[in-house]
Amino acid sequence: MKALKILLLLLSLQVFACAVIADSQTCPATNSDSCGDGWEGEFFPGIPQIKYEGPSSKNPLAFKYYNSEEEILGKKMKDWFRFSVAFWHTFRGTGGDPFGAATKFWPWEDGTNSLKIAKRRMRANFEFINKLGVDYWCFHDRDIAPDGKTLEEANANLDEVVALAKELQGNKKVLWGTAQLFMHPRYMHGGATSSELGVYAYAAAQVKKAMEVTHYLGGENYVFWGGREGYQSLLNTDMERELNHLARFLESAVAHKRKIGFNGTLLIEPKPQEPTKHQYDWDAATTANFLRKYGLIDEFKLNIECNHATLSGHSCHHELETARINGLLGNIDANTGDPQVGWDTDQFLIDIGEATNIMLTVIRNGGIAPGGFNFDAKLRRESTDVEDLFIGHIIGMDTLARGLRNAAKIIEDGSLDELVRKRYQSFDSEIGSMIEAGKADFEFLEKKVMEWGEPKVPSAKQELAELIFQSAL
Amino acid sequence: MKALKILLLLLSLQVFACAVIADSQTCPATNSDSCGDGWEGEFFPGIPQIKYEGPSSKNPLAFKYYNSEEEILGKKMKDWFRFSVAFWHTFRGTGGDPFGAATKFWPWEDGTNSLKIAKRRMRANFEFINKLGVDYWCFHDRDIAPDGKTLEEANANLDEVVALAKELQGNKKVLWGTAQLFMHPRYMHGGATSSELGVYAYAAAQVKKAMEVTHYLGGENYVFWGGREGYQSLLNTDMERELNHLARFLESAVAHKRKIGFNGTLLIEPKPQEPTKHQYDWDAATTANFLRKYGLIDEFKLNIECNHATLSGHSCHHELETARINGLLGNIDANTGDPQVGWDTDQFLIDIGEATNIMLTVIRNGGIAPGGFNFDAKLRRESTDVEDLFIGHIIGMDTLARGLRNAAKIIEDGSLDELVRKRYQSFDSEIGSMIEAGKADFEFLEKKVMEWGEPKVPSAKQELAELIFQSAL
Amino acid sequence: MKALKILLLLLSLQVFACAVIADSQTCPATNSDSCGDGWEGEFFPGIPQIKYEGPSSKNPLAFKYYNSEEEILGKKMKDWFRFSVAFWHTFRGTGGDPFGAATKFWPWEDGTNSLKIAKRRMRANFEFINKLGVDYWCFHDRDIAPDGKTLEEANANLDEVVALAKELQGNKKVLWGTAQLFMHPRYMHGGATSSELGVYAYAAAQVKKAMEVTHYLGGENYVFWGGREGYQSLLNTDMERELNHLARFLESAVAHKRKIGFNGTLLIEPKPQEPTKHQYDWDAATTANFLRKYGLIDEFKLNIECNHATLSGHSCHHELETARINGLLGNIDANTGDPQVGWDTDQFLIDIGEATNIMLTVIRNGGIAPGGFNFDAKLRRESTDVEDLFIGHIIGMDTLARGLRNAAKIIEDGSLDELVRKRYQSFDSEIGSMIEAGKADFEFLEKKVMEWGEPKVPSAKQELAELIFQSAL
Amino acid sequence: MKALKILLLLLSLQVFACAVIADSQTCPATNSDSCGDGWEGEFFPGIPQIKYEGPSSKNPLAFKYYNSEEEILGKKMKDWFRFSVAFWHTFRGTGGDPFGAATKFWPWEDGTNSLKIAKRRMRANFEFINKLGVDYWCFHDRDIAPDGKTLEEANANLDEVVALAKELQGNKKVLWGTAQLFMHPRYMHGGATSSELGVYAYAAAQVKKAMEVTHYLGGENYVFWGGREGYQSLLNTDMERELNHLARFLESAVAHKRKIGFNGTLLIEPKPQEPTKHQYDWDAATTANFLRKYGLIDEFKLNIECNHATLSGHSCHHELETARINGLLGNIDANTGDPQVGWDTDQFLIDIGEATNIMLTVIRNGGIAPGGFNFDAKLRRESTDVEDLFIGHIIGMDTLARGLRNAAKIIEDGSLDELVRKRYQSFDSEIGSMIEAGKADFEFLEKKVMEWGEPKVPSAKQELAELIFQSAL
Repeated sequence: MKALKILLLLLSLQVFACAVIADSQTCPATNSDSCGDGWEGEFFPGIPQIKYEGPSSKNPLAFKYYNSEEEILGKKMKDWFRFSVAFWHTFRGTGGDPFGAATKFWPWEDGTNSLKIAKRRMRANFEFINKLGVDYWCFHDRDIAPDGKTLEEANANLDEVVALAKELQGNKKVLWGTAQLFMHPRYMHGGATSSELGVYAYAAAQVKKAMEVTHYLGGENYVFWGGREGYQSLLNTDMERELNHLARFLESAVAHKRKIGFNGTLLIEPKPQEPTKHQYDWDAATTANFLRKYGLIDEFKLNIECNHATLSGHSCHHELETARINGLLGNIDANTGDPQVGWDTDQFLIDIGEATNIMLTVIRNGGIAPGGFNFDAKLRRESTDVEDLFIGHIIGMDTLARGLRNAAKIIEDGSLDELVRKRYQSFDSEIGSMIEAGKADFEFLEKKVMEWGEPKVPSAKQELAELIFQSAL
Repeated sequence: MKALKILLLLLSLQVFACAVIADSQTCPATNSDSCGDGWEGEFFPGIPQIKYEGPSSKNPLAFKYYNSEEEILGKKMKDWFRFSVAFWHTFRGTGGDPFGAATKFWPWEDGTNSLKIAKRRMRANFEFINKLGVDYWCFHDRDIAPDGKTLEEANANLDEVVALAKELQGNKKVLWGTAQLFMHPRYMHGGATSSELGVYAYAAAQVKKAMEVTHYLGGENYVFWGGREGYQSLLNTDMERELNHLARFLESAVAHKRKIGFNGTLLIEPKPQEPTKHQYDWDAATTANFLRKYGLIDEFKLNIECNHATLSGHSCHHELETARINGLLGNIDANTGDPQVGWDTDQFLIDIGEATNIMLTVIRNGGIAPGGFNFDAKLRRESTDVEDLFIGHIIGMDTLARGLRNAAKIIEDGSLDELVRKRYQSFDSEIGSMIEAGKADFEFLEKKVMEWGEPKVPSAKQELAELIFQSAL
Repeated sequence: MKALKILLLLLSLQVFACAVIADSQTCPATNSDSCGDGWEGEFFPGIPQIKYEGPSSKNPLAFKYYNSEEEILGKKMKDWFRFSVAFWHTFRGTGGDPFGAATKFWPWEDGTNSLKIAKRRMRANFEFINKLGVDYWCFHDRDIAPDGKTLEEANANLDEVVALAKELQGNKKVLWGTAQLFMHPRYMHGGATSSELGVYAYAAAQVKKAMEVTHYLGGENYVFWGGREGYQSLLNTDMERELNHLARFLESAVAHKRKIGFNGTLLIEPKPQEPTKHQYDWDAATTANFLRKYGLIDEFKLNIECNHATLSGHSCHHELETARINGLLGNIDANTGDPQVGWDTDQFLIDIGEATNIMLTVIRNGGIAPGGFNFDAKLRRESTDVEDLFIGHIIGMDTLARGLRNAAKIIEDGSLDELVRKRYQSFDSEIGSMIEAGKADFEFLEKKVMEWGEPKVPSAKQELAELIFQSAL
Repeated sequence: MKALKILLLLLSLQVFACAVIADSQTCPATNSDSCGDGWEGEFFPGIPQIKYEGPSSKNPLAFKYYNSEEEILGKKMKDWFRFSVAFWHTFRGTGGDPFGAATKFWPWEDGTNSLKIAKRRMRANFEFINKLGVDYWCFHDRDIAPDGKTLEEANANLDEVVALAKELQGNKKVLWGTAQLFMHPRYMHGGATSSELGVYAYAAAQVKKAMEVTHYLGGENYVFWGGREGYQSLLNTDMERELNHLARFLESAVAHKRKIGFNGTLLIEPKPQEPTKHQYDWDAATTANFLRKYGLIDEFKLNIECNHATLSGHSCHHELETARINGLLGNIDANTGDPQVGWDTDQFLIDIGEATNIMLTVIRNGGIAPGGFNFDAKLRRESTDVEDLFIGHIIGMDTLARGLRNAAKIIEDGSLDELVRKRYQSFDSEIGSMIEAGKADFEFLEKKVMEWGEPKVPSAKQELAELIFQSAL
């Protein structure tokens, strides 16, 4: 069949996102042992090790605020952040968009999605991580290794690249792995929520393998982003049945985690929509409701992404705090969107105020480990120099470092916390305690009102809070 | 104190929404027995009883689609809808908005919020309900009776108006009552989530009384809309403590309901924001998460409002379905927003397609009783004729009646249901049953994938579903 | 150079949108004469000629409302609409999106973008148009013919396909042609507004050729959609210089139109954003301002797209009316977006009310010729049957046909027009005429106010207008 | 007539925004000469003169960045900004919102809108301005003086308060005045675009008077904000006729300006919507189109408000730049909205990055005089202390001062400008000059393309631009 043939072709050649490709593989899966990747020397020859040079530096290839070993509030900066490079954006992002072809043609690419190039990219990945000075990386199964004509072939490809990654990885670690259940056309109706049983099974098999290789690489978390777990129209969708399937699927993932002895955290990454009109993991609260309904609340945490937060109508800070007070803050996808744009732009964070809010929550949470900050951020389509990859990560890391420094200042200063504490101090009274303990019923309170008369209501002092906050920036 | 004096003044004169008022009361609470309301004859003298005249009628004061006694799918139209007039919009809506003063000066008003006028309005309410031919009404405590200088005085005012309502009500019923915890400045930081204990207590006392009068009037439900239960800024807010307070408050409401023998349903009405930047009952899923977290999920249902749905980034149909499959669909606030407008416009629904979707969910839910369809909809500010009050409700009722007729056609035709059933039929197999029963683990499914190879994935037929849907309109 | 090599590869293989491709061309441009397209028989073998069967028909492959030869308000339906099939969505839409690969594998495709397949598609196009019963088609240069390694080669490819189209076209016509200035990476910074002079020149050469082939095919309009004519960030953009370049570019287009004797209308298609953060042709008013500023207002009209309208914060009706009263309504891209979605979904219109509004404007405009209704609408990614292509167009055409029938009813009934006329009748007075003629200065009017006292301001009767409107649906 | 009586009542008592009021006037217009305002001593007794104390100050009642006499880029800070206090927000803002009553009860208010209190407020205004250390103020006619039962009475009230303002004003100046054409119910259908001729005339008379008193007070600009100049529904609106009326109205305003010898700038303030669904002055480009269409482009400039910018889907920077390159940047309403909120929140600006962008445009424009920065910003409803009025303005002024300092750093550093200059340098060539002079036609350019081959397209370096920008913050 024609469609199937093209589909198979696609399997062997598909690159991440809106890719444009060509040529046949130069090193097929069936004969890969003898294949090196044919690349000599450095991948980023002009780029030095990125160092901390302080705020007055004019060097774009240096940190001005991120100083990995410096202690802030009793912890090294690198331990607050646990920064991670996202393999897909950095190494598989092509610059393609719904109206445009790829714009990025990195020197180590040859236009194919062969095993040879997959391995070469993995080497580039570690050189990048090392030069940037971060300790973690994240990946989807299909962005590190080519898909296959069959699941067996895909798994074999994956094993081969993973073996290389293990070898290259040294003291670097996997922050989390995940399975790509959204790119391949088989997943067009979803993975765990596909209307097709065969696709559900395929998704299960793919997640099984992805969990196993994450475990093998010493990954500290495993992520579920259900890009296609949602609907385009309620007219042709049985939402209740799909949600039941999703719960069954996640229960099985928990069981498999136990079976293989993986102790990392399972994370769900909420996103409201795109590519679907409605994604079931809409935001933190929606995901928490789902987890509670199906008795999964103790098995999962959340991976909060700032751009997803704003697409769902919330500030990033709101989503982080919602996750935190539900006991679900597991990881942060450090990026930002454009406030006037209605789709996921995955930009590097540059807003110092937002970074400060993020870090206030992280500090309040006692840190984010075993999660971290994954740069789910990509270069703009028009940024096409190799050095742009470094500049993007540097501005992202420096922005968050400024956020941490500012948050520490605010906490050490104490006046913002004091303002909030005072606001609620009437509840620190005896009757306040009764109310908070559930011992003050409506009759009791009605009597108190009649006794007290009209309550005094002080100013909320929001402008003062903003002034205190801004003075730390 | 000056502020207090003005506040007290306000208590006695305050009208709903952006009101403009004047004069002192002509009939004070302390001497109201001798006060009639001084109004002779009909309130709506030119308006006949609104009757069903069928689709070809050109009479704007007649129903073209709503035929109360006609049976659709085995139930009378009036029993599907249980239409309710919202006292506040219809009788206390002034046309004020953030940039403009009142525009509506109904003949029975004299510019005061006195008990005399409160009673007169109540008589107008029942004439309106009778002429419109609906069976239910809804109210906030403070929109049917004037506030007082003290809680005792406010309660006495309320009792007096409620006694009259009981007398006038006849076979009409209260769909639901509620307490207005958002208008008075004491509630500026919230009611149950106020940072001030005295306000929490006041809110408790006010809800206690509102539940009692709802019960006294035979109300079938009681609603919580937390217009101020949210935040303006996270910088000065302890969200976790506020949410804990809200849970304590709702637990007390459940206890009070039992104590007074009220058997109606307690309903929460989600809204994402406005007046606050973030309201804790953001949408159906967020509210469900809250109820589950605090063990309240069996005590509350949801009152879904279409305009609130779209403000939260969802279609109305989505929110209704989410409530339904969480077992929480309790009532519908029948209105609509403007798709290009970012605030609550509370317009009468005129979209036949949306009405059809709403009714598909209601039918699937087996009806909405003991809830109903409350017209939380208001005239545009510029609609200032008394007859506009009728025209607005007529178009709203006719639109929903068209929705019901269309939904019945779709269900009787069966082809849309069949399309959906077929889409998921692979799960009606033996392995599908295993998956749905939680008996198919990842290993088993992986083996199946290797056995089956690439799954076939059929078209979702969305355009066909839309074509079938539209052909019923 | 590697990058260049991959780029060239891309030129030869690129398919529209997020495409996945492979293989080399089977019939190179240099040797195309001897190439047939190797396809026997019908492209849509199971699909009959689509006929009008009336509202009671249950046949999804028939029109229920569109009856091409039926006269409505003195004009045949087909002449009101002048429906056009968009070649790109129908024949080059792959179902790819930012997170997913192609899903559509039409039987006549072989996975290449060769001339052979380009010709085969063109034959499929005319079979489709014939079976659907429309008279027009629209195209971008690069979606009908493969790009080339050089401009000369690309032009030769285009000429070859255009020659075939001319031959096949018969009594069908080109509604409009356009140049694709957004897909190729050279256009990543824009075409006419690129920061690179060489790209400006390339865009000029490409538009020149596209205008010429549109003229050759008897096209009645030529469209400019500046998908990349905008910016991603103001920080690195000289907006003023870019807008000046855009004006120079359009002036040259006008000059070239005259030079080649093309009498069709030049159209600009506003869109607020996507792919850029800000597109210079944001909406109708923004585009009109640009045209006026640069003295081009008499040379261009607008192609209004409903989905673009709503993305810019306006209703479709607003954009159509804005174009109309600025004398700029030239063509309609008939589609719709999802009101909760922040990107261009290009769905087939299914909202009868919106269709009625559209047709009210078109009737008020005295029709849309020499423009028409182009179906800039695509199947959902998950709709993968060949018949879905027909179903999508049928529901789109039937929806607009219902809109026309409803609009005619509203106009014939007259009561909505009468309501509007009456609303403004105070200006039909002597002083009204003075005001409208610019002869009533502030002093004169102040005197009148002192003479008249407080004006009476009647109800706007919006609910009545909505009731009249809806009763025609 | 009852309605009229209530309306008249309203005229005498109405306060700005959603006000709650009471009592009759204590000092009627007819006997105001003998009326003092009965207020002794300072209005803000605990508040000192606000001074510059530098960034390390912890004093909330001091400037940390705004140092009025300090020179930046050759101009004093106060001359860059020309800060203005908005009378309405600061002195007539009550804290009312669509769901809540007034919350602010300033000590000098007595709950009335009498002339006595109007005068007292004016004294408070100048004490506020003096303590804050700004030089300008802005006002609507109806917020400084009570309305009257007739235009004559309203004008007399206005004259009386204006006379006092003139006396009190000293070396302070009016940045601009305007007429309030949105609060009174007569304007519910618009002022210049009302469907009622009598309202058009009334608006004309009111603007005439407001222009005259602005001129009398030495105002440097006059503003038109058409809050009601728009529509709620196209179904009952003749948009074309309304726009024609608006043009006639503005022409008359220009004529009247000349007649009275007022040399200030006429400004239009764009806003997309709220209170109307669509306001005719949607954004800068829409307003420019209107001005060009009606030949008014040389008579008006724009007053850009940041919150209005974001509500229209643009960044504030975009609107400022659009105004600038159309030669229309006249004044800035310095505030900000909440990026997740769909209505006008008019918050004090606290985003340093946005402030820096604003100041980059102002510097590029050579300053903003005779316009300035008007604080169209209000306290949050929950901020109820008198000192909050100062804190809000201080954070707003300091934020803009940081913006100016940062912008100066960016300009002095030069690397951002250099990055932009380089991006377009290909147009600084001979052929670039030909293109920019309109001398390079399509044929010429096509030849060049064939000569040059594929153009090279460099990286846009957006992340580098962001890094340079942020390093100045």
